[in-house]
Amino acid sequence: MSFREDGEAALDWAARYLETVRERPVLAQIEPGELRSRLPDTAPDEPEPFAALLRDLDDVLMPALTHWQSPRFFAYFANTGSEPGILAELLAATLNQVGILWRTSPALQELEEVTLAWLAELLGLPAGWHGHIDDTASTATLSALAAARARTPDRRVVVCSEHSHSSVAKAARLLELELRPVPGDERHALRPDLLDLDGACAAVATIGTTSSTAIDPVHAVADACEAAGVWLHVDAAYAGSAAVCPELRPLFAGWERGDSVVVNPHKWLLVPMDCSTLWTRRPDDFRRAFSLVPEYLRNDAETANLSELAIPLGRRFRALKLWAVLRCYGRSGLQEMIRESIRLAALFEEWVEAEPGWEVVAPRPFSLVCFRHDGTDDENEEIMRRVNTSGEAFLSHTKLDGRLVLRLAVGNARTTEDDIRATWDALRREAARR
Amino acid sequence: MSFREDGEAALDWAARYLETVRERPVLAQIEPGELRSRLPDTAPDEPEPFAALLRDLDDVLMPALTHWQSPRFFAYFANTGSEPGILAELLAATLNQVGILWRTSPALQELEEVTLAWLAELLGLPAGWHGHIDDTASTATLSALAAARARTPDRRVVVCSEHSHSSVAKAARLLELELRPVPGDERHALRPDLLDLDGACAAVATIGTTSSTAIDPVHAVADACEAAGVWLHVDAAYAGSAAVCPELRPLFAGWERGDSVVVNPHKWLLVPMDCSTLWTRRPDDFRRAFSLVPEYLRNDAETANLSELAIPLGRRFRALKLWAVLRCYGRSGLQEMIRESIRLAALFEEWVEAEPGWEVVAPRPFSLVCFRHDGTDDENEEIMRRVNTSGEAFLSHTKLDGRLVLRLAVGNARTTEDDIRATWDALRREAARR
Repeated sequence: MSFREDGEAALDWAARYLETVRERPVLAQIEPGELRSRLPDTAPDEPEPFAALLRDLDDVLMPALTHWQSPRFFAYFANTGSEPGILAELLAATLNQVGILWRTSPALQELEEVTLAWLAELLGLPAGWHGHIDDTASTATLSALAAARARTPDRRVVVCSEHSHSSVAKAARLLELELRPVPGDERHALRPDLLDLDGACAAVATIGTTSSTAIDPVHAVADACEAAGVWLHVDAAYAGSAAVCPELRPLFAGWERGDSVVVNPHKWLLVPMDCSTLWTRRPDDFRRAFSLVPEYLRNDAETANLSELAIPLGRRFRALKLWAVLRCYGRSGLQEMIRESIRLAALFEEWVEAEPGWEVVAPRPFSLVCFRHDGTDDENEEIMRRVNTSGEAFLSHTKLDGRLVLRLAVGNARTTEDDIRATWDALRREAARR
Repeated sequence: MSFREDGEAALDWAARYLETVRERPVLAQIEPGELRSRLPDTAPDEPEPFAALLRDLDDVLMPALTHWQSPRFFAYFANTGSEPGILAELLAATLNQVGILWRTSPALQELEEVTLAWLAELLGLPAGWHGHIDDTASTATLSALAAARARTPDRRVVVCSEHSHSSVAKAARLLELELRPVPGDERHALRPDLLDLDGACAAVATIGTTSSTAIDPVHAVADACEAAGVWLHVDAAYAGSAAVCPELRPLFAGWERGDSVVVNPHKWLLVPMDCSTLWTRRPDDFRRAFSLVPEYLRNDAETANLSELAIPLGRRFRALKLWAVLRCYGRSGLQEMIRESIRLAALFEEWVEAEPGWEVVAPRPFSLVCFRHDGTDDENEEIMRRVNTSGEAFLSHTKLDGRLVLRLAVGNARTTEDDIRATWDALRREAARR
């Protein structure tokens, strides 16, 4: 095989995909098992050309893809695999670094630490915290709670809002900690008056919950945590990237008091999956939870190793794509992208508010609009289902105050006002069809 | 920025890197902090061209890279980021799939399940097990032990060999399970006569330990596990790929009796970091440990979701590179690569055995040779240090029976007999210089 020739073909395929993704149905148009039934039962005995793979990408895999890169992807939290990020992944795979110890890839470790310091500065987080990259916020939150448990092993409770991400419950289950959810207020933010930290090793405050992007009162939670000596983990997985805009910083008030903070640049900061960034003022507690150096890894104590702060022993060179994105967009480019997402979400919110029979059902601090049509939950779900199966756009739902609510999450950098308009038209069309 | 133009430049950079990696010093030639000091303190305010990144890769990052792709990388376990795997990573980043639920990427989920079934067949593992991909074996082992704990929550002991990988101890610490190491025999394999499963939720048997690629007696451990109703986790992270060769299958006798088996295609099966494959006959126990579906992810029960079997909620499209490698090499190509690694290791072993003043100090079932020169530990470490700092080759060490031992791990697909010969020459030269 020729790397250059196959590479040209792969690059051309990638370029064409990005050029045409707008035209594809956003949500995969197949039934469970359909792709599986179209693939052979076993690997081939003899080598196949790379071109065969590219052909099957078009002919076999394409209908089974949900197009996260589509400008009309509005489900969950929309993201963007940006061009510099994509090409950096090509380079990272080429270099195939394995970060175990510092010396197994000084570039990986130092670039990871440097880009995390850059990102902390961009977001207005305190200088001097230690930052590292995990695959996802689920892993980062699990790690932070493990560090919290290691700090105060006799306390076995994690306190969070009832609207916290499911990864908090998942981590608590794995760590065998009791989960103590605090009710939310009418804005779905944690009610500090109901906060009970008795026996708690950690509390989780969320800035931008997954359901409705609610903002917990971080200062109030931090006050309580400080008084009780409890670890404060701040989950800003989605919203954190928005702190690159100074005018949005007030929404993040108090996060600088966290013991750990997680932000996902693979959500709203143009970095392809996967890249979840975690900062902590207490790396020693992470080390207490995770450090363990066997003889075959013993080494002159040249520097701390990232593997001593995390679950995996080896890590890939994710910092390269973060570096690429931060440099190729710059502070101004990142701010521009965030502001445009928010502008488009605000526009959609206005349209919904102005339209009889529709309502916005939660505050919109960032780029997610929670809304619904007058009618039952089933009717709302049916409107969403029809839009999604039409392929014109892809939205998801949640439940707030017992009611089913539609979510339009703006976050793909290719989304334009026309995309928002067309999606709104499709929603109204399907509502009228009932 | 132009994706096609920047892509051409990135591809050319990648091709040149692979063409010239043989000429570079294998181990990074810098001091801790040196790279950091050469990078700016903050991200740029304005966008930079992608070309600036490529320039800095050459000028700033290159000396800080340890070249895992070098044919003279023999440390830890040598690996290969193969060309089809590298290009598949470009495509995966382009598609930017996020596997949360089946419908967020049917292609990701079904291709992951299909390629894992292909790989199970290639390796001679039982049909019908459920397979999924984790980032590393550390995570896979943690998941398996969490599933074992969920199955028998009242038992709190993990039994393994004293030569088991450090990730077993790390997982036990996180899961708050007691670690009960069993002494190894003169071949560094677990001694089944000393196996005590009282109170154990899991036992770990390793096929190819990290220190010396020792093989635990899996059948004997499986017998004991079956009698006591204890979960058997088989760690074949490095060696498992070798089972693609039928003549090596006897070394894996008994692994088909495991409750879970982990193999790392990113080690010895040409897949770039990161790709660790785990199969289990008990997906329901994984679900018991990890499944948790909040409302915003609720969905028609169309199919099981991979996120219910693992720590992260979202996963990237790693199956694509595994698919690319299995197809572009085929069974025959994978067998050829494994056999060549083993042939070269056997050759080196012969040379060491034939040379006065040197000895092979452990059996060599696969492609790792454990050896030492007559003399003290310090003298051996000094020989290794000199070879490593010369840049000609990179080896690592371990301790066996209280003595420091050098390890030559063959596993890079570009390694030739000349590379082995040159490394052996360098070792003898440095030994003679003392």
